[in-house]
Amino acid sequence: MADLNAVKQALREQRIETPSWAFGNSGTRFKVFAQAGVPRTPEEKIADAATVHRFTGVAPSVALHIPWDKVADYAKLSAFAADSGIRLGAINTNVFQDDDYKLGSVTNPDPAVRRKATDHLLEAVDIMDQTGSRDLKLWFSDGLNYPGQDDLRTRQDRLAAALREAYDRLGDDQRIVLEYKLFEPAFYATDVPDWGTSYAHCVELGPKATVCIDTGHHAPGTNIEFIVAFLLRQGKLGAFDFNSRFYADDDLMAGAADPFQLFRIMYEIVRADALNPAYGINFMLDQCHNIEAKIPAIIRSVMNVQEATAKALLVDRDALFAAQAAGDVLEANSVLMDAYNTDVRPLLREVREDAGLDPDPIAAYKRSGYQEKIVADRVGGQQAGWGA
Amino acid sequence: MADLNAVKQALREQRIETPSWAFGNSGTRFKVFAQAGVPRTPEEKIADAATVHRFTGVAPSVALHIPWDKVADYAKLSAFAADSGIRLGAINTNVFQDDDYKLGSVTNPDPAVRRKATDHLLEAVDIMDQTGSRDLKLWFSDGLNYPGQDDLRTRQDRLAAALREAYDRLGDDQRIVLEYKLFEPAFYATDVPDWGTSYAHCVELGPKATVCIDTGHHAPGTNIEFIVAFLLRQGKLGAFDFNSRFYADDDLMAGAADPFQLFRIMYEIVRADALNPAYGINFMLDQCHNIEAKIPAIIRSVMNVQEATAKALLVDRDALFAAQAAGDVLEANSVLMDAYNTDVRPLLREVREDAGLDPDPIAAYKRSGYQEKIVADRVGGQQAGWGA
Amino acid sequence: MADLNAVKQALREQRIETPSWAFGNSGTRFKVFAQAGVPRTPEEKIADAATVHRFTGVAPSVALHIPWDKVADYAKLSAFAADSGIRLGAINTNVFQDDDYKLGSVTNPDPAVRRKATDHLLEAVDIMDQTGSRDLKLWFSDGLNYPGQDDLRTRQDRLAAALREAYDRLGDDQRIVLEYKLFEPAFYATDVPDWGTSYAHCVELGPKATVCIDTGHHAPGTNIEFIVAFLLRQGKLGAFDFNSRFYADDDLMAGAADPFQLFRIMYEIVRADALNPAYGINFMLDQCHNIEAKIPAIIRSVMNVQEATAKALLVDRDALFAAQAAGDVLEANSVLMDAYNTDVRPLLREVREDAGLDPDPIAAYKRSGYQEKIVADRVGGQQAGWGA
Amino acid sequence: MADLNAVKQALREQRIETPSWAFGNSGTRFKVFAQAGVPRTPEEKIADAATVHRFTGVAPSVALHIPWDKVADYAKLSAFAADSGIRLGAINTNVFQDDDYKLGSVTNPDPAVRRKATDHLLEAVDIMDQTGSRDLKLWFSDGLNYPGQDDLRTRQDRLAAALREAYDRLGDDQRIVLEYKLFEPAFYATDVPDWGTSYAHCVELGPKATVCIDTGHHAPGTNIEFIVAFLLRQGKLGAFDFNSRFYADDDLMAGAADPFQLFRIMYEIVRADALNPAYGINFMLDQCHNIEAKIPAIIRSVMNVQEATAKALLVDRDALFAAQAAGDVLEANSVLMDAYNTDVRPLLREVREDAGLDPDPIAAYKRSGYQEKIVADRVGGQQAGWGA
Repeated sequence: MADLNAVKQALREQRIETPSWAFGNSGTRFKVFAQAGVPRTPEEKIADAATVHRFTGVAPSVALHIPWDKVADYAKLSAFAADSGIRLGAINTNVFQDDDYKLGSVTNPDPAVRRKATDHLLEAVDIMDQTGSRDLKLWFSDGLNYPGQDDLRTRQDRLAAALREAYDRLGDDQRIVLEYKLFEPAFYATDVPDWGTSYAHCVELGPKATVCIDTGHHAPGTNIEFIVAFLLRQGKLGAFDFNSRFYADDDLMAGAADPFQLFRIMYEIVRADALNPAYGINFMLDQCHNIEAKIPAIIRSVMNVQEATAKALLVDRDALFAAQAAGDVLEANSVLMDAYNTDVRPLLREVREDAGLDPDPIAAYKRSGYQEKIVADRVGGQQAGWGA
Repeated sequence: MADLNAVKQALREQRIETPSWAFGNSGTRFKVFAQAGVPRTPEEKIADAATVHRFTGVAPSVALHIPWDKVADYAKLSAFAADSGIRLGAINTNVFQDDDYKLGSVTNPDPAVRRKATDHLLEAVDIMDQTGSRDLKLWFSDGLNYPGQDDLRTRQDRLAAALREAYDRLGDDQRIVLEYKLFEPAFYATDVPDWGTSYAHCVELGPKATVCIDTGHHAPGTNIEFIVAFLLRQGKLGAFDFNSRFYADDDLMAGAADPFQLFRIMYEIVRADALNPAYGINFMLDQCHNIEAKIPAIIRSVMNVQEATAKALLVDRDALFAAQAAGDVLEANSVLMDAYNTDVRPLLREVREDAGLDPDPIAAYKRSGYQEKIVADRVGGQQAGWGA
Repeated sequence: MADLNAVKQALREQRIETPSWAFGNSGTRFKVFAQAGVPRTPEEKIADAATVHRFTGVAPSVALHIPWDKVADYAKLSAFAADSGIRLGAINTNVFQDDDYKLGSVTNPDPAVRRKATDHLLEAVDIMDQTGSRDLKLWFSDGLNYPGQDDLRTRQDRLAAALREAYDRLGDDQRIVLEYKLFEPAFYATDVPDWGTSYAHCVELGPKATVCIDTGHHAPGTNIEFIVAFLLRQGKLGAFDFNSRFYADDDLMAGAADPFQLFRIMYEIVRADALNPAYGINFMLDQCHNIEAKIPAIIRSVMNVQEATAKALLVDRDALFAAQAAGDVLEANSVLMDAYNTDVRPLLREVREDAGLDPDPIAAYKRSGYQEKIVADRVGGQQAGWGA
Repeated sequence: MADLNAVKQALREQRIETPSWAFGNSGTRFKVFAQAGVPRTPEEKIADAATVHRFTGVAPSVALHIPWDKVADYAKLSAFAADSGIRLGAINTNVFQDDDYKLGSVTNPDPAVRRKATDHLLEAVDIMDQTGSRDLKLWFSDGLNYPGQDDLRTRQDRLAAALREAYDRLGDDQRIVLEYKLFEPAFYATDVPDWGTSYAHCVELGPKATVCIDTGHHAPGTNIEFIVAFLLRQGKLGAFDFNSRFYADDDLMAGAADPFQLFRIMYEIVRADALNPAYGINFMLDQCHNIEAKIPAIIRSVMNVQEATAKALLVDRDALFAAQAAGDVLEANSVLMDAYNTDVRPLLREVREDAGLDPDPIAAYKRSGYQEKIVADRVGGQQAGWGA
């Protein structure tokens, strides 16, 4: 049996990073449904992120997205975050929204566009120096819509060159986390389509480059926990973008579409003793709350990750390893499922109470009046969004 | 052997409808890259559609999308189209972009929203009366993002009620073509997700309701030509939205992603003698030209459909049926592939020359100066787009 | 809140049918790993099925597969089943294993093969007359491996003719349940590939024909609970073949791959008041236990279905409908998830104890000595399998 | 424009390896349909492979599968092949059909099974020493059917250890080609599921380990030509297993399901100047001819690869690179499609005639009487098959 005190301590120490952009408006190519109370400035996003942390206790950092969160003074923004009770986390680059990037950023056939895109990566490291961020999160939407549109191999050369420049600019305590994605917005070929591509580049770059797994970025049928286990073994798993999906990159709340999968992923983390923040994985959310209220959706997502983690921690690993060693398929599966089938909500309520939090973060948030306040206060101005 | 004269005649008589919105800007949730020269008004879209027809000779109608193509006087718009050398085709409804439709249109839990959405369908039939259009094209983005969000079955009741109202409003020569789509923008459940759902509703509605197949709206691995053959057998295939995809609803140029699939689809059409306009199928394009020039992309798409059709017409059906009857798998496949492997571009050049057209529509378009003219003329104003 | 007594009663009355062939050997094209103690005769399969019922209390019938379960005297077999404590259930036809069926059975281009296959369907109804079975379960592996191999549309005509003959042969209390499957063993086109095809044929046949949903037979991303809800609304859902899958038709234990999906399916059943045997749905298992012990795997599968059902019954439908009507996405999802996240194993232990059963069927089975006995007794002879 | 003489020379020098097992019976888990004339011995398989080479001129080697092709004297078998006009190619290992391998071979929890499996790999290198084969082709069916069944990470350790032993046993001119496969026969997790896993192991092993791409072993939507281009860039593409699929690992004739994809793959090969045998890629077929005649199906597959290659060679690379550099999406796509849309059959007929072959290999094979002869001669004995 898992040691309950150790489980509770691990749950108390768990850390989940929220994404600033998830507090803003988002949608599909068909429609962005604006919501009342949505933040208009980086500071308002940080205030929302701090609110999520206030009610969950496990979300003490917020990832920024440049230029969506561009400010004149990042040190000041950092101080604002600290005053709000959280800190600034990963810096996400954006090399997909300028008109120049129609045919790609760092892999664009035009060297001037590549230069511009690479300079943006370097600028992001400058920002990291000011925010004290560790992680430079790189996602390239670069790719092709049509066979023949550009040369697949040459684009890899261009990608490698840009990554190298960014890597060489990193400080001692900084690193690249390189995301991959099967498709969208490119619809024929994507330049970093899968974990293998990201991994191969990271290996070539060096120890400060690691892979970021966005759980919604895989082909149908991909076993994500296998990738987790494999990258952990190779020492190359740097970060998660948690969200969930039924079809493509749906960006639903983590754990909403397939809670069993999230549990299996967290089990591999626990099994590798990689849950603790000291291990170095950045467990981020990356979601779109297109039709549901944003702050409670993010609270709910944090709770879903916590529940999956609690179940993973409850796995009786001695019994599991024994059944596995004995080749007892049904028993081994049964041990794992026993943990999954446990209702861990009471345990998490305890963990929260121990930490001086309300055991029911959603109810507490609703009672807090925060939502009513932001709806009343945030009138006028330009609501944050993707700016697409 | 196929009779070459009959093949050429069939190709001359083929009709493909272009979509007004494909001439406007489009993109993904990440970015819409605007293009110079894009139309700003329904009239400018019609002018572009007429240009496609001028160079291809087989695209004499253009589908409208309401409200994107809303005008005060549809009879006047119809006359404008006629003066431009084409006619107005299917009327597409839009019940997905008003803020009211966040949780659905005709299946929304709120009866007032359902009323509003259904009224829009009825209004579209009013427009059809004025434009002389035959086809009311219905696509509902309605669906759910999360399990439990709404009741799957009740939504079908609501859908049936709205469809019935619209159906009963149809004139004698009008009909509903009901589109289906697996997902997007709904990411858990869509209310008309597959051909079976559309078919079942159409059967219940009556003879004036038929299914519209959008070639990009299926689950991975779906055999689309089977659906074509099946619906033809049931007398329920009303229309196509042609486009192509590698992943989801990518909306690439028809024939670009899988030309062999397009050929197999067209073979089922030819085999059922359903190519001729008299049969009643509306062969439409429905595409997004996010990164490529729009008018040549649409010309190219028309040509791709023509090439697939020419190959389908060239299938030696006597030889094919004989090999099929004999159970000769390799020979039957070989007969089909012989047609597919034929280079039909010379034949289509002939067909065009016989019709007094330039044999190379793309080159002729480039030489025509039309692109330069619209880029120069269409300055200022609001470029057409999806308005998302 | 759901009424706990009603929930327990519903669980007590639930019925799941086991498949005779799941007790025999099975495997992949790469290897069938034989297991000790596997039955050699229909009687031994029935004994195993009765054992599953003895420990679960909810599996009182066993489906037969002809010719794998062919016997000289079906009345005698029926009596044997009754003596064992169960009854004979659905009769499954097999028109895929004779050499004649290489290119199809009822859709074969050769009329003699079609005749033979159709006669087998009629023979199965004869058997049903003797076994007292209600359901003629039809699965056709018929399809094509190569484009052009045979005519898609003509094969539908042949299929319809055979179905009509079988339908007309049915007695008053008998019915057809028509299964569909995306692919395998046909690798290009399958003649009944999806629910729409099965549904359309069943509608044409009449009220005694209904659709059978095998949960493993869909394209990736298919929303199965939607199909369940839709067919229930149309009055055309006749049966389930439960199993689970990560990739294709993996035939894993029900609930093993995606327990959340199974819950969502069972919720639609409960919501339509279709769980009760009187409603008429045959809830069957159809699985392959390639590497795990067969009887405990089937017991486990039954328990998984029970757990999903218990959770579905626990959904607070008043609260759910209220949240849905209010358009409260998060609350509606939350109500559903509350039920899913409940640990229902204690409840099911109670239900079993109330019924005089051991609360832990797997442990009870292990203690019973049955496994040791069949391993010792069933030596020599020909182990049952698929005979491929 | 491509230089036609260079194109023809490249086509003459192209080499495709046939698989011995494709001449034997194969099928699905549902049924293996035996065919008349199928070989019963390795020698008869070699005779059939030599026949394919005799009519195509580009298939001068045959891959063996141990133990399916186990013989007492491999030098003698090699001499037999040479006398038949071909040579022995890759040695394929089989660690999936012994009863011991139910839970895996080199990743089995039982060290004795791992030892046995690893010894088989070493034995295969012994055989290579005798046959003069360069390639040790490794495919591991190892994996899990159920979550928890075994430890994902530990299995990688075991895999790495076995690969290391085999690698260290290789002679100077020998190498490992490591295949990957998404699923089947394992239905939850496979130990080498994707190119990234194979690549990472190959990098760790060293220069004599390279990746083998089986075109049917990917998740839906995977862009295979991207993998080809990427591995070529990394110097780690060692071999292909060509076949085609619509759904899973369908093992249809190469080019049958998606001829456009095969063309795009071959274009990446040509673009990297990797077609020539001197480059070192082993272009193998790996197919199942379940319902079609085997030898003509293999001839047809060879021809399909040739046609895709011819089209790839015909791409006007200067024009393509120019359009790519200019960012002209439509023109670049058009240049590629011009080559694809060309009917290359006349060119290949010429190439064959230049080489003293019949221009129509299928017709020549049919006229040759070989099929009739093997049907008449190969009576009695045990037909070759997978022995599942």
